[in-house]
Amino acid sequence: MPRWSERADRAPLLAFTDSCLRGIGQILFANNPLSGLLILCGIFAASPWLGVATLVGVVSSTATAHLLALDRSRIRAGLYGYNGALVGGALATFLLPAWSPSLLLYAVVASAMSTFVMVAVSLVLVDQFHLPPLTLPFNLVTLPCLLVSFTTTHLQRSPMLVRHVEGPINTVLRESASGVAGSQAGALLEAVLRGVGQIVFADVPLAGVLILLGLLVWSRIGALFALVGSVVGLLVGMLLGGDGHDAYHGLWGYNGMVAAEALAGVFLVWDWRTALYGVTGAAASTGLYAGLAALFGPLGLPALTLPFCLATLVFLALKNASPVFRAVPLPKVTSPEEHLRLLRSPLSAPPHGMENRDEERERRGLR
Amino acid sequence: MPRWSERADRAPLLAFTDSCLRGIGQILFANNPLSGLLILCGIFAASPWLGVATLVGVVSSTATAHLLALDRSRIRAGLYGYNGALVGGALATFLLPAWSPSLLLYAVVASAMSTFVMVAVSLVLVDQFHLPPLTLPFNLVTLPCLLVSFTTTHLQRSPMLVRHVEGPINTVLRESASGVAGSQAGALLEAVLRGVGQIVFADVPLAGVLILLGLLVWSRIGALFALVGSVVGLLVGMLLGGDGHDAYHGLWGYNGMVAAEALAGVFLVWDWRTALYGVTGAAASTGLYAGLAALFGPLGLPALTLPFCLATLVFLALKNASPVFRAVPLPKVTSPEEHLRLLRSPLSAPPHGMENRDEERERRGLR
Amino acid sequence: MPRWSERADRAPLLAFTDSCLRGIGQILFANNPLSGLLILCGIFAASPWLGVATLVGVVSSTATAHLLALDRSRIRAGLYGYNGALVGGALATFLLPAWSPSLLLYAVVASAMSTFVMVAVSLVLVDQFHLPPLTLPFNLVTLPCLLVSFTTTHLQRSPMLVRHVEGPINTVLRESASGVAGSQAGALLEAVLRGVGQIVFADVPLAGVLILLGLLVWSRIGALFALVGSVVGLLVGMLLGGDGHDAYHGLWGYNGMVAAEALAGVFLVWDWRTALYGVTGAAASTGLYAGLAALFGPLGLPALTLPFCLATLVFLALKNASPVFRAVPLPKVTSPEEHLRLLRSPLSAPPHGMENRDEERERRGLR
Repeated sequence: MPRWSERADRAPLLAFTDSCLRGIGQILFANNPLSGLLILCGIFAASPWLGVATLVGVVSSTATAHLLALDRSRIRAGLYGYNGALVGGALATFLLPAWSPSLLLYAVVASAMSTFVMVAVSLVLVDQFHLPPLTLPFNLVTLPCLLVSFTTTHLQRSPMLVRHVEGPINTVLRESASGVAGSQAGALLEAVLRGVGQIVFADVPLAGVLILLGLLVWSRIGALFALVGSVVGLLVGMLLGGDGHDAYHGLWGYNGMVAAEALAGVFLVWDWRTALYGVTGAAASTGLYAGLAALFGPLGLPALTLPFCLATLVFLALKNASPVFRAVPLPKVTSPEEHLRLLRSPLSAPPHGMENRDEERERRGLR
Repeated sequence: MPRWSERADRAPLLAFTDSCLRGIGQILFANNPLSGLLILCGIFAASPWLGVATLVGVVSSTATAHLLALDRSRIRAGLYGYNGALVGGALATFLLPAWSPSLLLYAVVASAMSTFVMVAVSLVLVDQFHLPPLTLPFNLVTLPCLLVSFTTTHLQRSPMLVRHVEGPINTVLRESASGVAGSQAGALLEAVLRGVGQIVFADVPLAGVLILLGLLVWSRIGALFALVGSVVGLLVGMLLGGDGHDAYHGLWGYNGMVAAEALAGVFLVWDWRTALYGVTGAAASTGLYAGLAALFGPLGLPALTLPFCLATLVFLALKNASPVFRAVPLPKVTSPEEHLRLLRSPLSAPPHGMENRDEERERRGLR
Repeated sequence: MPRWSERADRAPLLAFTDSCLRGIGQILFANNPLSGLLILCGIFAASPWLGVATLVGVVSSTATAHLLALDRSRIRAGLYGYNGALVGGALATFLLPAWSPSLLLYAVVASAMSTFVMVAVSLVLVDQFHLPPLTLPFNLVTLPCLLVSFTTTHLQRSPMLVRHVEGPINTVLRESASGVAGSQAGALLEAVLRGVGQIVFADVPLAGVLILLGLLVWSRIGALFALVGSVVGLLVGMLLGGDGHDAYHGLWGYNGMVAAEALAGVFLVWDWRTALYGVTGAAASTGLYAGLAALFGPLGLPALTLPFCLATLVFLALKNASPVFRAVPLPKVTSPEEHLRLLRSPLSAPPHGMENRDEERERRGLR
């Protein structure tokens, strides 16, 4: 949408709105304001309070980036918004009470912090290792912010945030903790869609549908692999014998979803090998989710998207050591289809035919 | 004090004493032997045993640096002493019994280790990211050294080192755990001064006064922001609803204190924006203190200065990404006033007037 | 053995076998197939199931490296095998039941992951800091894989993997938890040999003997310091007052063993100072073991070789900052004796005698 972008750039408020919508889209790598809008609708469909907190988060972190005069093109791409949006959503999910002004203020401060942490994480990952920061800043800000509720009295924890020891695990796919299974096929579909929604804490199937629609606007490959990743996550969870209540509510799916997207076409150029790699990465992220859940449970913390971040960074680190994959340089990341187009497009002026293709590709930054 | 420095350099023992005193000063960034002496007096005022352990620590880590033939100018600036001093103090605070020779031996070994860890941390932070190691080596050495007491029998823990689950939190500012509040104004003043003292485990108001005097010898801006940081920490603690017994004993203040100092004038050139930044960083450090205390409590560990280190590193990472602040290059760090003088001083030979100022500044390394 | 190497390189299956055997040897830095074979015999002597799992691990991780077309010379040196071998052994040790096909499948997947993590860890440690990855990838893969058993039902934990709070510690050296001491000298010898064996989870003295023989084939200095390191570890454990049952079973020895080897001659050129440094590093690793055991115990996790990795990396980071040690560049690491030979060998063409020695040494990469 070059036209919209240009129009937005002329009006500061419109540009800011555009940056924020892209920020919400960037949670799932979709640098597209319409994707952001549809994802936001999905969040509001799950809970208006969750929607407001997410909005507050993305506005606060994007505004902080402006205040610090950070790189304008990165702000406009939503890169200083997605972590803040998630921080806002997480605090609204794990702290109480809903609609509390002091909790909103807490979300404003915490989301602003995510911009600082984003700069620090980028200094290490982007500048030194040419790896994307992913949602690591969101995790690094949210985990301490949730921990604060254990040593202070003015923050109230939701029942989700409790230090628990191991109990018996019931693997039956079910809606309520003590419930029984309904239709297996329906439950599986719900689990997959809720898995998509859980990336933004939206625990209803409709949110999953709206998010997938939002991704479709940006990239068909992206939307497909988001769905595939959620399915892979659910299957790994069932294969390992994870809790069926968690599985039904999508907790086994969301890490795999973003991992599959990231590896299958966003940071590596899509082909059958990266497709396979995306599925493998989704499985690894889900395995790591099971591990980190066991580590964080006794501390009273959720694993958030840390499993996705760590597994995906490890898988992406391979891009320099192995000749099997074509990496997309970070500043050129747009969408899986665009990367393919850039790679396949006829050369601007091919003087000596095929031989120059590789050079040309290198010039375009696609190895 | 160029004269004293020169005299000290001619006599090895005097030079070593000078290095050690600067080491104690460097706990609060004061590269000045007189500051170190006054801070040491503060520590002795709190507890002679604490003072001896701190001395043993700074001597052991500085001697280790000599033994390993590390960079002489860094040794002389006390940079291989401050972590050792803190390790000695921490072991004397959290382990028992006082005046035990075997505990002193343990402190000698642990402080020597801090020099090794300082080299390793500097390899990453200083060499790769131009960020200061702060007191990270102290934390990385002390935490395992305290943990050892849980799996062995020859080290005795103080009652402060106990694995605790959450209990009710009493926010009333008070001296003893089960006590009631006295005069509120007096308690607040005590809390602020103890907050200053707690950076060296000195839990008496007099130590806070002596430390502030020590800082004044080195820098008025430094001393002011140390005080401001302790106040900010206390306020954040009360705002969040932290435990009033901890607040009274300065535990909410010491992280904010050093964070404010570091950001307001030590590693960034002082102006009204870094002043604000120092206050923000003090608040963030204190928030992180609340979070890490919740993480470390069930493990039986204190948070030490880890909150300060992590928050300050994140805030300093911004210096390359944002044009808002002027960073002081690490080798040129002396005192906030000296940085201002260097920046503002008339140029040595200004041939074309104002235009060359920026170049000259760049040449002096102050962007 | 240049001849064997050449013959192996001509036959793919032989080359793969050779890579795997070197992989097992590399657990203790022995890039030598015969060492690997003797170490493998030691593992089988302790338990055939442990041997099979180790083999499955080394084959899976080495095959994964081939699949990803990673650097061939590194594969042939066993560098993509040793972490996988340890992952296989660890899962066979801490999970149940023995000889279970699904557990073997889990080991195949986890060992394959170790190759991915090896690439990521090398990107940071080797490429940025010229430090060896050691067995860090093994730890980073195994700890989450063990944690998974706490949140899922299809993996069964061995009784070794239990979340425990502190109980009384009995320092008497003894075979069974509730047992009494036998002959002190015999128990000490057993503890030292089991300490050597525990690096590959082989808890029998015979394994220790076979491993030491395997090391002798590769390097006398290496074998000597492995033994010295295990002794130092045991002594530090007894000095601190560690549990006598753990000490008897070698748990205080294995971290010190590899640390002593690494520092005394593998990554630094052997002389009396590195010998002392190896002993110091072994003691530091063992102290860190005590600390990490206290951290990991309540989480139900073993400390694995994390103490060795962290302590050794810190000690090796010194090689650039201190002129005291001669570092061996990572690509030139072979065996302590070979490093000495390279350093001491008469120069190819010494035109001006002694003066050129240093240049020549530098050219050979041995500072």
